Amino acid sequence: MGVGAFDRALSAIGPLDRAAAADAAAHHLRLTKPRGSLGRLEDAGAQLAGIAAASPPPVPEPAAVAVFAADHGVHFEGVSPWPQEVTGQMVANFCAGGAAINVVARQVGARVVVVDVGVAGPLDAAPALFDRKVRPGTANLARQSAMSVTEAALALDAGAATAAQLVADGARCLVTGDMGIANTTPAAALIAAFTGRTASEVTGRGTGIDDATLAHKVAVVETGLARAAADGTLGAGPLAVLASVGGLEIAALAGFVVGAAAARVPVLVDGVVALAGVVVAAALAPGAVGYCVAGHRSTEPGASVALAHLRLEPLLDLGMRLGEGTGGCLALPLLQASARVLREMATFDAAGVSDKG
Amino acid sequence: MGVGAFDRALSAIGPLDRAAAADAAAHHLRLTKPRGSLGRLEDAGAQLAGIAAASPPPVPEPAAVAVFAADHGVHFEGVSPWPQEVTGQMVANFCAGGAAINVVARQVGARVVVVDVGVAGPLDAAPALFDRKVRPGTANLARQSAMSVTEAALALDAGAATAAQLVADGARCLVTGDMGIANTTPAAALIAAFTGRTASEVTGRGTGIDDATLAHKVAVVETGLARAAADGTLGAGPLAVLASVGGLEIAALAGFVVGAAAARVPVLVDGVVALAGVVVAAALAPGAVGYCVAGHRSTEPGASVALAHLRLEPLLDLGMRLGEGTGGCLALPLLQASARVLREMATFDAAGVSDKG
Repeated sequence: MGVGAFDRALSAIGPLDRAAAADAAAHHLRLTKPRGSLGRLEDAGAQLAGIAAASPPPVPEPAAVAVFAADHGVHFEGVSPWPQEVTGQMVANFCAGGAAINVVARQVGARVVVVDVGVAGPLDAAPALFDRKVRPGTANLARQSAMSVTEAALALDAGAATAAQLVADGARCLVTGDMGIANTTPAAALIAAFTGRTASEVTGRGTGIDDATLAHKVAVVETGLARAAADGTLGAGPLAVLASVGGLEIAALAGFVVGAAAARVPVLVDGVVALAGVVVAAALAPGAVGYCVAGHRSTEPGASVALAHLRLEPLLDLGMRLGEGTGGCLALPLLQASARVLREMATFDAAGVSDKG
Repeated sequence: MGVGAFDRALSAIGPLDRAAAADAAAHHLRLTKPRGSLGRLEDAGAQLAGIAAASPPPVPEPAAVAVFAADHGVHFEGVSPWPQEVTGQMVANFCAGGAAINVVARQVGARVVVVDVGVAGPLDAAPALFDRKVRPGTANLARQSAMSVTEAALALDAGAATAAQLVADGARCLVTGDMGIANTTPAAALIAAFTGRTASEVTGRGTGIDDATLAHKVAVVETGLARAAADGTLGAGPLAVLASVGGLEIAALAGFVVGAAAARVPVLVDGVVALAGVVVAAALAPGAVGYCVAGHRSTEPGASVALAHLRLEPLLDLGMRLGEGTGGCLALPLLQASARVLREMATFDAAGVSDKG
């Protein structure tokens, strides 16, 4: 991982290729089906053409999901029923292939890597585990900045460098993943900070908390935002906001998305934690959003707020709220089909099928 | 194809195995994820357990999609802008591998077979084409019964026999497919007849007709239903209704669904034409519906009416309206993932992950 990977990616992002996207849309009119009948798959195909600057676009495969893992000082406030050590235990589960993301990734043929950017405890080495720990968990954002600006920048670098490495290894589609007990709290704080919505509008039940804990969690997000407003970080630009109320894996996810865009590779975005990263990425690099495809609409309210802010519409809505990259991976075959349709379907002329009058 | 395949399937349908479904639901609570966090994938996994009478259920693979093709006398009324010969041209396109269903099936690893139950013209033989033609297209349902009760029964047999054959060939998941210019008109008539809704509530733009043609199409459906009411077929039981206002491929689809249920194999249901078949199947064999998984919510209004009638909720909603089995096939990886999660995910105990307090 090189310091500076994020800035290099930032300067490498180019616009989508509008001509290629338009060509893909026009090609759809010649394919043996009623016009528009493949619905949002047609839009996805055109987006892939714009991303790859090629029509028809390449099928986005192989895919790789990066699960960024970190701990959160705000866990101390009692925002989650899960003990903090579950973050590290789940990293071991990912490395052993037993978690939901491993199963879903096997189903769709995606590689899984786990990137430690801030797990509190030590982790056993494993082939799928990348050690890019910035610090062993954030500070408690309700009371102080979660991390320094320098640390946030290092986490952005870790994400951007991971994207570059996976693409160098052959990946042609990236998927965001996350693990971090209590991480829906910084996700809510970031989404509130960047969209102007209130804590109660963007804070949800995460892994499944009761009404009393939810009310407390909303208050903790409010406290963190008030603290950040008071210490001036809320008005000091996106990087300062990220450092103040963010999380290490969320910063890395923002860098990962920017890295994918720099490599002109589509990135399938998962649930509320990944979307918090995309909201940060959009503030730092607006051009990165065009490379994002939303995989699944999490039941977390902050996810829908972030999606509307980013003008993204997910491919799936299955009532999931797990994270790890599961919602992104499950959408992968749909995205691949959207490219394959443009590459492999016969035209009316070639197939000898009469077009309607 | 044996005459009687449908009746044999009908008598072979058993109930879902509630104990296996409950066991799958209980097993989800032990897996390393927050309870309920996989949303509708958890419900699908339990349904698969009930279908297979096994927990965990087998992964539903390999899959096979059967595209039932037929022509419609009601095409004469001007309900579609497409010439009738497109049905046969598209059958050739399916057999050559160039249609949308071929591409989507390749993406998800499903076999495609095409079953001629009533295409008007002659078709060239092809390895993927099954000849089970009952008659060369229906009569014009606006003026007379679309087919005889005997012909409807033969089409039901063709569908049930196709399901049995595909399962005998190794398929462990079936997908409904359809092709027939003008077939959204009989689909609308059947859905209206079996749900009690009006023609205008269930009739849509099909492949994309303008307002004037849509108004005409609604009137044609109304005319057909009034004719069937007047000649007494509308009150003479499900088979009589199917023969009177149905289509040959829709009858075959009803038989196919019943055949899948008899074989205890899940059947992924596509758009409005397939759903018309399931509505018929539900009237003839209510127990068959539990073996159905809705793949995609077609934009056709009749699809949503049929889904509500059947109490099915589709896995996908991508604004598609193509048929052919595309919406069913695209949902296949989701269904497979729902079984794989139950088979392959680690439990809290096995992975050494702390459950929440």
